[in-house]
Amino acid sequence: MALKSFIEVHPDSHFPIQNLPYGAFKLQPSASPRLGVAIGDYVLDLSEIAKAGLFNGPLLAGSDCFLQPTLNKFLALGRPAWKEARATLQKLLSSMEPTLRDNADLRQKSLVPMSEVELVIPMEIGDYTDFFTSMHHAKNCGTIFRGPENPIAPNWFHLPIAYHGRASSVVISGTDIIRPRGQGPPTGNSPPYFGPSMKLDFELEMAAIVGPGNDLGKTIDVNDAADHIFGLVLMNDWSARDIQAWEYVPLGPFLGKSFGTTVSPWIVTLDALEPFACDAPKQDPHPLPYLAEKISKNYDIALEAQIKPSGQKDSTVVTRTNLKNLYWTLTQQLAHHTINGCNLRPGDLLGTGTISGPEPESLGCLLELTMNGKNPLSLNGGITRRFLEDGDEVIFSGCCKGDGYNVGFGTCTEISPEILRA
Amino acid sequence: MALKSFIEVHPDSHFPIQNLPYGAFKLQPSASPRLGVAIGDYVLDLSEIAKAGLFNGPLLAGSDCFLQPTLNKFLALGRPAWKEARATLQKLLSSMEPTLRDNADLRQKSLVPMSEVELVIPMEIGDYTDFFTSMHHAKNCGTIFRGPENPIAPNWFHLPIAYHGRASSVVISGTDIIRPRGQGPPTGNSPPYFGPSMKLDFELEMAAIVGPGNDLGKTIDVNDAADHIFGLVLMNDWSARDIQAWEYVPLGPFLGKSFGTTVSPWIVTLDALEPFACDAPKQDPHPLPYLAEKISKNYDIALEAQIKPSGQKDSTVVTRTNLKNLYWTLTQQLAHHTINGCNLRPGDLLGTGTISGPEPESLGCLLELTMNGKNPLSLNGGITRRFLEDGDEVIFSGCCKGDGYNVGFGTCTEISPEILRA
Ligand SMILES: [Ca+2]
Ligand SMILES: [Ca+2]
Ligand SMILES: [Mg+2]
Ligand SMILES: [Mg+2]
Ligand code: NI
Repeated sequence: MALKSFIEVHPDSHFPIQNLPYGAFKLQPSASPRLGVAIGDYVLDLSEIAKAGLFNGPLLAGSDCFLQPTLNKFLALGRPAWKEARATLQKLLSSMEPTLRDNADLRQKSLVPMSEVELVIPMEIGDYTDFFTSMHHAKNCGTIFRGPENPIAPNWFHLPIAYHGRASSVVISGTDIIRPRGQGPPTGNSPPYFGPSMKLDFELEMAAIVGPGNDLGKTIDVNDAADHIFGLVLMNDWSARDIQAWEYVPLGPFLGKSFGTTVSPWIVTLDALEPFACDAPKQDPHPLPYLAEKISKNYDIALEAQIKPSGQKDSTVVTRTNLKNLYWTLTQQLAHHTINGCNLRPGDLLGTGTISGPEPESLGCLLELTMNGKNPLSLNGGITRRFLEDGDEVIFSGCCKGDGYNVGFGTCTEISPEILRA
Repeated sequence: MALKSFIEVHPDSHFPIQNLPYGAFKLQPSASPRLGVAIGDYVLDLSEIAKAGLFNGPLLAGSDCFLQPTLNKFLALGRPAWKEARATLQKLLSSMEPTLRDNADLRQKSLVPMSEVELVIPMEIGDYTDFFTSMHHAKNCGTIFRGPENPIAPNWFHLPIAYHGRASSVVISGTDIIRPRGQGPPTGNSPPYFGPSMKLDFELEMAAIVGPGNDLGKTIDVNDAADHIFGLVLMNDWSARDIQAWEYVPLGPFLGKSFGTTVSPWIVTLDALEPFACDAPKQDPHPLPYLAEKISKNYDIALEAQIKPSGQKDSTVVTRTNLKNLYWTLTQQLAHHTINGCNLRPGDLLGTGTISGPEPESLGCLLELTMNGKNPLSLNGGITRRFLEDGDEVIFSGCCKGDGYNVGFGTCTEISPEILRA
């Protein structure tokens, strides 16, 4: 029988005792953030659990890592400490265990209704990298930007291509995104377009949160790479396609991306995702030895993007895809990132790139769904979209279906930035 | 007559009372960093000056910004506070002013011989961006990578092209750089090259240190941009040309750059550089209104790169160039960076890109100097180089010649990372 908590958790909830994702929350806007895990409709305040001396395993007893405003210190401790914390919390929250269940005072102090808190990004992000690991996305974008002959550059099948993103503009789900202004391609002999982007897009991605890092000049072996990944979040890499198209030669995306990147508030740990691991796709050509891993895993995480047009009640699902569509694994991405000696730090964010699948309904951005605006998308209520309009909400969700429970990344409304004109 | 300090400063020194660049230093390896300014062969410990109550102007009296381990808090205060600090320090160090000159105890506490300290990077760098603003460099690289027809992409003359760099691997002058491993282009039908980079290069650059930032979604006007720049450092954007050539399509440089970026320890303020301001080059086509500035300035900073080959006593000057060779100004770079609403933060690093001039002796990297290794460079002692070899030192210097004094970025040995095989 599945593990159960003494806290009632609705069967549709993304946050049963099997999940326990990590986040940070504020009780008042001016308060310092506290660390927590989600359980049903509650946040368990880890600072209260720590102060009550209930992290009493050998690695975490006496540690102040849960008294910090961010997870960075806990992230740096690595998987043995993460496993110990998970075991402690699953025991504490289980229906059989009286310690918290029967202690009204501690319950009162440590269990906060999620509706009463403000969630904030739970880590300091030193650097944010975005990969490009869906073959379908690479092929579709290459076709649109460079034409149907050889849409995928020859390097793509040999290494997980990536670029450095902007860390300062990573925001939490729910933050309004301001439509960026900038230059777009000129038409004919006129000067470049300048004004608000007319091709505002989302990119449905996930991102890994780095645990222990590596020293500058050292590498992380692909077979050890999983121990450097704490967990995953949903990520929306907002993209202004007109700005991107004009600026990206020869140094890659810059202002077409750096106006905002949204992440979901709860980090679902790799330990919680382990039951949903599946084989990664076969890679041909065979990767170079430093990328050839003994066990090559993806995770079966169903992903969905919806658009709720400005002023409308109903949203429309515009894509259904899955993390397992990726060609390069999370561990290959991380190992490749360090092969030159580049140092990762706890809390770094590694985006997967847009997660497009093979079907026309599984494309992860409007650029692909509308063929760069050529074929408008029909939404509920007779509305159409080529790109995003002001006030549109974009809602991502991600969920793994277990036997009688879900391990999910949050309810649909948890990624819903409004898009506003500057 | 020029302002003089009671501290004897050699006429060749880069650090007379007219300069007073900011840095951070440690008295012992385990000590917390302290903030200082360079004066001759000494570092003036700003924490001691603050504790003595000598920052007594209206903006800095009672502030703890000089008691921090980094400059970030001081950077956030903006130019009025920077000018007040400069006035206070120039007065305190001047030959006419007894306060410090005649106080043996305070002199003893606050003036530390530079030879006795370890210099560290004086700011936390949230994000590092590298621009591409020398037309000569853009033209030469375009010719090498894409051929002599249209070497400069059409966007280049309309906007200051840039990419996000890696913040974690920015290191201070003197840090050993490990030769990166990675993939290079395949030859014929074989798999890609894999191993230590065979085309290790330097890039002679300068970088601006951001002062007050901007909120996400807001822009900084090009005519206000100078107030957001605290000062400049020398920067070496180490580059592995084989890794870069293979990976950069379509998302730009990644592992070919992220193994290390060296900055000089002392930040020379824009206020100290003001006497060396000069007109920026005429821009044709005329920039779009958001980049058209009322006063368009460069700075006349003579720059030099030397190579000291492994095992040799003598170094050879391999390039002599000048910051004033740049097409896009520092203020245009900063304003462009925010035009999409991207938020800058105090301490951000904005590299100029390789500073190549028009002459064959003024090229800022070996890629250009040797035409991608085709024409080896002759160094003193009969030695030649196509790219860097293990143990080679690369030494940058930068200096403005005033009337009887220099405002410089440090002595030659201040950027001298060794290049070692992993
Ligand atoms: Ca992306
Ligand atoms: Ca560069
Ligand atoms: Mg983004
Ligand atoms: Mg670099
Ligand atoms: Ni960064």
